[in-house]
Amino acid sequence: MRAPAATLAPDDIDGAVDRLIALVRDDLEAVNDVIRDRMQSPVPLIPALAAHLVEAGGKRLRPLLTLAAARLCGSTGDAHVKLAASVEFIHTATLLHDDVVDQSSLRRGRPTANLVWGNQPSVLVGDFLFSRAFQLMVETNSVEVLGILASASAVIAEGEVMQLAASNNLQTTQAIYLQVVAAKTAALFEAAAKVGAVAAGRPAADAQALATYGLKLGIAFQLVDDALDYSGREASLGKTIGDDFREGKVTLPVILAYARGSEEDRHFWRRAIEDRKQGDGDLSRAIALMERTGSLSETIRDARFYAEEAKDALSPLPKNAYSRALVDLADFCVARVR
Amino acid sequence: MRAPAATLAPDDIDGAVDRLIALVRDDLEAVNDVIRDRMQSPVPLIPALAAHLVEAGGKRLRPLLTLAAARLCGSTGDAHVKLAASVEFIHTATLLHDDVVDQSSLRRGRPTANLVWGNQPSVLVGDFLFSRAFQLMVETNSVEVLGILASASAVIAEGEVMQLAASNNLQTTQAIYLQVVAAKTAALFEAAAKVGAVAAGRPAADAQALATYGLKLGIAFQLVDDALDYSGREASLGKTIGDDFREGKVTLPVILAYARGSEEDRHFWRRAIEDRKQGDGDLSRAIALMERTGSLSETIRDARFYAEEAKDALSPLPKNAYSRALVDLADFCVARVR
Repeated sequence: MRAPAATLAPDDIDGAVDRLIALVRDDLEAVNDVIRDRMQSPVPLIPALAAHLVEAGGKRLRPLLTLAAARLCGSTGDAHVKLAASVEFIHTATLLHDDVVDQSSLRRGRPTANLVWGNQPSVLVGDFLFSRAFQLMVETNSVEVLGILASASAVIAEGEVMQLAASNNLQTTQAIYLQVVAAKTAALFEAAAKVGAVAAGRPAADAQALATYGLKLGIAFQLVDDALDYSGREASLGKTIGDDFREGKVTLPVILAYARGSEEDRHFWRRAIEDRKQGDGDLSRAIALMERTGSLSETIRDARFYAEEAKDALSPLPKNAYSRALVDLADFCVARVR
Repeated sequence: MRAPAATLAPDDIDGAVDRLIALVRDDLEAVNDVIRDRMQSPVPLIPALAAHLVEAGGKRLRPLLTLAAARLCGSTGDAHVKLAASVEFIHTATLLHDDVVDQSSLRRGRPTANLVWGNQPSVLVGDFLFSRAFQLMVETNSVEVLGILASASAVIAEGEVMQLAASNNLQTTQAIYLQVVAAKTAALFEAAAKVGAVAAGRPAADAQALATYGLKLGIAFQLVDDALDYSGREASLGKTIGDDFREGKVTLPVILAYARGSEEDRHFWRRAIEDRKQGDGDLSRAIALMERTGSLSETIRDARFYAEEAKDALSPLPKNAYSRALVDLADFCVARVR
């Protein structure tokens, strides 16, 4: 068994993303310029709706991965800037479609685009940004990169459909759930890190090491997100607490609490998650059951395990400021919840 | 002024698509194999939903364009087969998203996917097919082709958003409407024909000639579709007559009838199209107003004009069975309505 301890003290952890941002500051500003430039269109609704999401202060975690991976591998050109922007466009497109699919109302602390403009433009502007992502990749002239991100996009869509089939279904096992997470969330983290190495012209083994780092980090990230939905504070999270519960999403904390619950607990879960019959106090009761069964702390323990695997994957790569920043990033991801 | 006469007798016209299909039969079978193979996924809902649309007997007009253009230009490899399948996947993805956006209930004579499975999987399976399209293009190893189809996809999304802004808005001018049609429909016809020439390795001028053919053909095709929505027979059309009217879509027949209508007519159009207050007999009244103002016949006249321009665009290209089939196809498109 691996020790789940983080390698950074709490104060350092909070600074991990900031330090990564400081390391790639020029690249990140160039990425933001490309994003602002390429979300333009003669059709005014498109940049308006895109800006609503793109400029709402997301963490830019995925493009940061591309930039750090590229610099870690000694990239010098500007291909990694275009690829980072392209990764963020794919992510934004999936968010727009997700919010339509989930009928969400709050994202990054603001009303969702589907709530402000309706579902129709959200679907179409998602398609637009997705196309723009591929146009940007074309400019890097690398068929390999196009292949990596096209495959990731297909896998993301598969993951989203799997999640749809699993939603409101308490028969979903932990194994199936991890497959969903690997596809819908971690596949883009994986591709984002991998294309950075490919842009730097590194050997396939290095690209694969970074791909594995991204995949494991993505799983850790999603598991922490799932835990935060039942334990985070609304202000710091930028989304509504209990969203997953109200939507009847079957995430790992629910799967474990259901598996370990009494017959009475299971009756509660079936009513709340499968039948979507929820009343006042049900969210609090769900949280109490998770605490009693230890399902939240086990979710976080699993997340830490994947974060450690992510860090291990980096071992064959050069040791430099960028690889150290990626190690810290893995610690940060799981330290968001304590 | 150009004479709008078709160059084929009516009986020949009906056979035009069949003759084109016969010319590229082996290629088309290979395309159908690729489509069936690549819409597979370990997630069962994806092929089920995709098959509902892909196998519903669409005309495969866009992949036929790619195949005919490639063969016209002497293509020998199998890149054009993959590109044709990729074009059909992009088309299918836009249909899935369109039907969600339009809340349509009938497509190709069958209930729409959004009606059978709901909006959520329709959005996500559209995303999946779009990604698969790019994976197929990657296999042809041509960044040029990826650029052409990524740009076309962005333009299609822009056209759809423009159409959304124009819907229920009788201030939409004929010029704006033609921009919408060029983007949402004709851009894919244009790209479909162009990538065929590129796959065959023809000079840029030939690829551009085929692109122009596709663009003009696409505009003609859409204008005829708009006319058929008010004049076609339901069985042969495979969709509900009056769909555009009920959705308050401002198409060319409506724009012209509104511009030429009396004050009383305009009051009717505003109520039916802008306020969406429609009752029994309103569709019949709309058709009667279109006949009185000549708006349907002018729409068809315009479509014939674009079909002639499409045929003219082919003049610099080799004269062979494929170029003759493309000429006949342009005549067929406008002969669907008489």
